[in-house]
Amino acid sequence: MPYMEEQAAPMDFTKYFSVETVNRQRSALKVLRPYFEIPGMVSFGTGIPHPSTFPVNAMTISIPFAEKSVFIPGYNSLEPESLLPLAPYTAPSKAEPLIPDLADALSYSATYGAKHLLVWLKESIKRIHAPKYDDWEVCLTAGNTDGTDAVLRTLCNRGDTMLVEEFAYPGLLSPAATQGINCVGVPMDTDGVKADALDELMENWDEATQGRTPKLILMVPTCSNPCGMTMSEQRKRDVYRVAQKWDLLIVEDDPYCFLQIRPNGADSPIIPTFISLDTDGRVIRIDSFSKIVAPGSRLGYISAHKVLAEKLMNSRESATQCPSGFSVAAISAVLRAWGGHEGFEQKYIPYISDIYAKRCLNMISLLERYAPASTIEIPKGSGGMFLWVRLKIESHPDVNKRSADEIEQSVFQTMIEDRVLCVPSVYFKAPSKTVLTREEAARNSYLRISFALPPPEEMEEGAKRMGKSLRKEWQVEA
Amino acid sequence: MPYMEEQAAPMDFTKYFSVETVNRQRSALKVLRPYFEIPGMVSFGTGIPHPSTFPVNAMTISIPFAEKSVFIPGYNSLEPESLLPLAPYTAPSKAEPLIPDLADALSYSATYGAKHLLVWLKESIKRIHAPKYDDWEVCLTAGNTDGTDAVLRTLCNRGDTMLVEEFAYPGLLSPAATQGINCVGVPMDTDGVKADALDELMENWDEATQGRTPKLILMVPTCSNPCGMTMSEQRKRDVYRVAQKWDLLIVEDDPYCFLQIRPNGADSPIIPTFISLDTDGRVIRIDSFSKIVAPGSRLGYISAHKVLAEKLMNSRESATQCPSGFSVAAISAVLRAWGGHEGFEQKYIPYISDIYAKRCLNMISLLERYAPASTIEIPKGSGGMFLWVRLKIESHPDVNKRSADEIEQSVFQTMIEDRVLCVPSVYFKAPSKTVLTREEAARNSYLRISFALPPPEEMEEGAKRMGKSLRKEWQVEA
Repeated sequence: MPYMEEQAAPMDFTKYFSVETVNRQRSALKVLRPYFEIPGMVSFGTGIPHPSTFPVNAMTISIPFAEKSVFIPGYNSLEPESLLPLAPYTAPSKAEPLIPDLADALSYSATYGAKHLLVWLKESIKRIHAPKYDDWEVCLTAGNTDGTDAVLRTLCNRGDTMLVEEFAYPGLLSPAATQGINCVGVPMDTDGVKADALDELMENWDEATQGRTPKLILMVPTCSNPCGMTMSEQRKRDVYRVAQKWDLLIVEDDPYCFLQIRPNGADSPIIPTFISLDTDGRVIRIDSFSKIVAPGSRLGYISAHKVLAEKLMNSRESATQCPSGFSVAAISAVLRAWGGHEGFEQKYIPYISDIYAKRCLNMISLLERYAPASTIEIPKGSGGMFLWVRLKIESHPDVNKRSADEIEQSVFQTMIEDRVLCVPSVYFKAPSKTVLTREEAARNSYLRISFALPPPEEMEEGAKRMGKSLRKEWQVEA
Repeated sequence: MPYMEEQAAPMDFTKYFSVETVNRQRSALKVLRPYFEIPGMVSFGTGIPHPSTFPVNAMTISIPFAEKSVFIPGYNSLEPESLLPLAPYTAPSKAEPLIPDLADALSYSATYGAKHLLVWLKESIKRIHAPKYDDWEVCLTAGNTDGTDAVLRTLCNRGDTMLVEEFAYPGLLSPAATQGINCVGVPMDTDGVKADALDELMENWDEATQGRTPKLILMVPTCSNPCGMTMSEQRKRDVYRVAQKWDLLIVEDDPYCFLQIRPNGADSPIIPTFISLDTDGRVIRIDSFSKIVAPGSRLGYISAHKVLAEKLMNSRESATQCPSGFSVAAISAVLRAWGGHEGFEQKYIPYISDIYAKRCLNMISLLERYAPASTIEIPKGSGGMFLWVRLKIESHPDVNKRSADEIEQSVFQTMIEDRVLCVPSVYFKAPSKTVLTREEAARNSYLRISFALPPPEEMEEGAKRMGKSLRKEWQVEA
């Protein structure tokens, strides 16, 4: 029989995969995606800004090779007639910080980002956060996810430990796990991470059983995702002191900073941030335009001690290289059109935060109206996009028969049957060194409600459905 | 004496750095930056597209919160009057692949990227490269640097070996080194990587002395950076067969693909690419809009077997997340305005490649006119942005006194004194297992000349100065 070449076997790609690829954890929230697609579902699931808040609702681009300009539609603006009237143009003076210009923006920029925008952002950080030391620097990122990637790659090795909030953003937990960084949650109360719990955790850290001693803590201190909590100034001071004691770096991931509800609106200053309290240069602050301007801008910025800022940016040289020039030009022009710093701080932030504040307070009053008080504990709400509603598992009929996690899952499933989607707290739970008693666990179960996106009538319908599910679960009369 | 708290010592940040940060290698070319800034320098140093080629020369954005549209200037278009006339707008039909729309683009998109643009790009890959197997997929990246980062992170661990071209792009060598990936250069001739040299390298690979057996080879097969070379179809077939023999993945980094000079211009097909020859799914093709549209778009795309494409995109979920929506909307609108696939392939590519082809041929004729034939060997040129000019070290007066590297450096310095900047080949030399004899080394020394950016009169002046320097160095009469 003549020699015959066998049919080539399909390639086995797995042998080419890196350790990261083999161990990759994707965001836990991805498993919820099929539920979003159920017809008629009211979703309190995602923290996506409403497109009506996007800063640009249409544009035209002038295309030399096509010898014409073309219109690009946007939210509620489907034809060229809906373009807002073109304002007379005055070229920015050299002294003006914001200089939108495509001839520059469409070429390679420095990794730190377009200089004019950096100057503006540095001034903005100074005006709003007023860092207490001199050697800080600002650099651009391609959004907060990119910023977080820069921080993790720059500071952490496989096997390192990073402290995070007890309930943390899956978009942080999953890349950390993929990179082999062990996240450990620090217990929280309604004011965020507890300083004494942090101190105790560090005091009792045992490398032999717990792995490498943590060298940084990452928090979302304002209107946090998932908890919607905002840390008070005092709590920040307390946590900062503990960080000093144990020489921890603090990563302040603060995309919702400007969405906080302030007692007297724009007249109240924002709650002092970690970077504004920092005297040592141990705070890395990550800002983003995603939540207050548009997620699709993929534009953010990091403020940190210049030694750290340089290392963070060096890491981007071989990653994103620099943010999109279309984004830089457009966002610079938007900030200029809004009236620079004054317009941003005095007019735009109050406007955008008010949109979410109203939604937040509306959601709270809907829950108060439709959900039986014996089933959930409704938080005060601090703005942003999320409410963190505690399930009163301790009064659930099955409290002695099933675990808190099982009851939480059952509540979630009942709500899905009733066509309303909230995210159970289990999806946000960071690995923890704390063992809860059965009673403690019953008091530590939550739903994350995102109120950012649904139209008002859907919010009400969603709250009604939640009430119905909760009554079923807790066997409470209507 | 009362206890006095000592003044806090400045923080030592180095203890927080990751292994990557400690070992980070930045692009070797960065050391050349000061030379760029010398007044009067004619630079053949950088491969940056000329801003006159950018696809958008101005735009307007409609800003609801400012209740107006504003103008953003661009190349040669400094006021609203220079905007090209706005074409009548017809909304894309559902069947049309390109659907520029800011309401979508400014929100989060799937990591694979905006679906409409992906459909278009997949069709483009099919039309131009016609992969021979079915299970391939296209995904968007935030540019080629991001695409390369995705490939390295997905496939390589610290200590892995990656094969690269003997002279390789520093923007590849430096992140690989930072990530602890050992690059090994494969010997080249004027047709790129030599298949027999690749086979020999693999045949004789000894893990004990050389480290892990390579599992992938990355090449820039068209108008390569730095060598300006374009691999023939036959060479690609030969290299592909060797890759099959040793089960190597092939990464085809091809940003200059559409800038190749074709014998009959647009009437000649492009030289078949690796992905068009691939039957196994072992080729990962990285495309970019940076060189043919605009670097600042930070938009590229990867085509690969769907198993690999999925892993590559999963890695981006926790990095760039998705490309800029402003870029996606603008580039989609540009592609639409250019007339879709036909316009891109039949009109735009011939137009843009012609610009660089003319520059390439002009640079060659200038070198022929001004540089003594005894000092350099001028390549044929294949388009793109670079010429790779061999220094005839073998006929340099100091050939027996100094090493080839020293003479190359001396030529570079003489040119700097004469105010013309080319990049010596030492900056591109990948680590190698091949030991060259003194004679071989004398014949393996080059200058990279980038002809992409300088205006024609500067090109001529630069060539004159090069001629002057070369005459000095080789002690040749004018």
